Amino acid sequence: MAKVEDRCRQVQLVLSDVDGVLTDGGIYYDSQGLETKRFHVRDGLGIRLWQRTGFTFGVVTSRTSQAVKIRCAELQIAHVRQGVSEKLPVVEEIASSLSLSAEQVCYVGDDLPDLSAMRWAGLGVAVADAPREVRQAADFVTQTRGGRGAIREVLEMILRTTNRWDDLIRRY
Amino acid sequence: MAKVEDRCRQVQLVLSDVDGVLTDGGIYYDSQGLETKRFHVRDGLGIRLWQRTGFTFGVVTSRTSQAVKIRCAELQIAHVRQGVSEKLPVVEEIASSLSLSAEQVCYVGDDLPDLSAMRWAGLGVAVADAPREVRQAADFVTQTRGGRGAIREVLEMILRTTNRWDDLIRRY
Amino acid sequence: MAKVEDRCRQVQLVLSDVDGVLTDGGIYYDSQGLETKRFHVRDGLGIRLWQRTGFTFGVVTSRTSQAVKIRCAELQIAHVRQGVSEKLPVVEEIASSLSLSAEQVCYVGDDLPDLSAMRWAGLGVAVADAPREVRQAADFVTQTRGGRGAIREVLEMILRTTNRWDDLIRRY
Amino acid sequence: MAKVEDRCRQVQLVLSDVDGVLTDGGIYYDSQGLETKRFHVRDGLGIRLWQRTGFTFGVVTSRTSQAVKIRCAELQIAHVRQGVSEKLPVVEEIASSLSLSAEQVCYVGDDLPDLSAMRWAGLGVAVADAPREVRQAADFVTQTRGGRGAIREVLEMILRTTNRWDDLIRRY
Repeated sequence: MAKVEDRCRQVQLVLSDVDGVLTDGGIYYDSQGLETKRFHVRDGLGIRLWQRTGFTFGVVTSRTSQAVKIRCAELQIAHVRQGVSEKLPVVEEIASSLSLSAEQVCYVGDDLPDLSAMRWAGLGVAVADAPREVRQAADFVTQTRGGRGAIREVLEMILRTTNRWDDLIRRY
Repeated sequence: MAKVEDRCRQVQLVLSDVDGVLTDGGIYYDSQGLETKRFHVRDGLGIRLWQRTGFTFGVVTSRTSQAVKIRCAELQIAHVRQGVSEKLPVVEEIASSLSLSAEQVCYVGDDLPDLSAMRWAGLGVAVADAPREVRQAADFVTQTRGGRGAIREVLEMILRTTNRWDDLIRRY
Repeated sequence: MAKVEDRCRQVQLVLSDVDGVLTDGGIYYDSQGLETKRFHVRDGLGIRLWQRTGFTFGVVTSRTSQAVKIRCAELQIAHVRQGVSEKLPVVEEIASSLSLSAEQVCYVGDDLPDLSAMRWAGLGVAVADAPREVRQAADFVTQTRGGRGAIREVLEMILRTTNRWDDLIRRY
Repeated sequence: MAKVEDRCRQVQLVLSDVDGVLTDGGIYYDSQGLETKRFHVRDGLGIRLWQRTGFTFGVVTSRTSQAVKIRCAELQIAHVRQGVSEKLPVVEEIASSLSLSAEQVCYVGDDLPDLSAMRWAGLGVAVADAPREVRQAADFVTQTRGGRGAIREVLEMILRTTNRWDDLIRRY
């Protein structure tokens, strides 16, 4: 646990998969081909608080949907990469563009295509309901399932470890 | 518990957050940017019963959506304030417009932006799945999660404490 | 339990509420006012099997939605009454139109407006997640929650009690 | 358990029901008659991995919806049969078109119309939340509920038994 805390202290950029992390994995299709995704309101506030500290949040997903674009715009997420078949190069590129090393990056995933980015990042996180191999490869596994506040849990953990959380909630 | 009962006895106005309280926190976006929210039928009846006793219900939310407007109109909710960045002043203003003091107000929330209104209100309530800080600041934490009947539980509790519940259900 | 079995043996008509029984209580509104309901596929097969024995199924609901009309048409449900403020007279009228007595009717509900019909019917059923007063007034409480197969459980129970279930599934 | 492993070793074609297996049984209707289904992202990756080994996946469903067509096209599922009233002949026909015997077919279902295909297939699988009769007729019952990754669990089990899983995930 001390190790996870050490890792948390260095994180300045959190990158996340979308389906299964910011959502519960549900992909809704209607009979006209319209796709719907279900995000969680408390993940949203977590991301806003994280940004308010001056840190950066981004998403890297293999699928492409307009719903992700809309939700990310609402939360003013700067780095939104959709249709990514190989995640690690994109994750490295975002970190590099911000002059951040792997130790300063946290990556949150839920499935096999997230493994390389999770391993590369200083803090690799798997959601509670990720498959065994993914949880085993993670530095930290959330208690919360994807789409139910898993990202909020990660961001709160990092902010608590660095004593920023109390400052943030003092505003309220 | 006696304390909560005392608080319940004075409540004449219940104000509630929307996302995470009247819904389970899910924010659905489709690929055309249309937003959907999921309300619960038994919350709806609870609000109608509460209003039938002559009491008032209202919602105060930081987000803005047409879905909230529609659901509130259906339930004839008089006070609907959306796009509210600071909740406490709005809550105080609604109470004041009804000549009610803080002791006569119950506020139900699920996250940090609800804290100030929860603390101000005579009866501050957090839903079962609210974060720790929010539950700790509450006079009462529901057993039910947001969007699954949490508001119904609160309204029933107040109506039972004041012996109005039995009168209401005698009609059925 | 013997008592419930006796009640099951006489049932020829099952009437059900919609929201909270055929659905999990979720009322989805989008930003254009479109309402969506979530039904369950295994309830649907249960209703079709029930009808195949020559028995009748109907719904009586206080709300009104096109989604209910569509789902009921798909399942060839003969009696569909929406916008019903007082359920008992409508339930009695449907039974009477089929020359059935109260003992031959099962009514399934989830909330206070269902109480009078539940009490009148020979077999009054509440879903697992109904409020306390509703469960207490029921002859039988399902193990399954509304929208997750509660109606299927009721119809299977009646068909098993009358030894029709084994005949029905022999086809498969 | 050894028996299930033996059955797994021969499987080259996995056929699945849709509602209740690839979805959690939810059938969403909106007020304009549009139907929505909720698929799971991790089932999708499982199907893609299964296909990458050179094996075949298909769906056989009694209902008909555009949403199924769209999701199956996205996953490049070759065999998509909707509106099927009798499943076994269709399952046999697909197997025959691929010159596969019953032993080489796995069929995954959740309800009575799946029974004949489940019994015929060398490996008949029921999802965790299937009714008792369906679970009893299965060679294997998943731990995961339909729509929550049940198909992923089945495909992973077969691929692990035949030692293909480790090769597949080595890419990541």
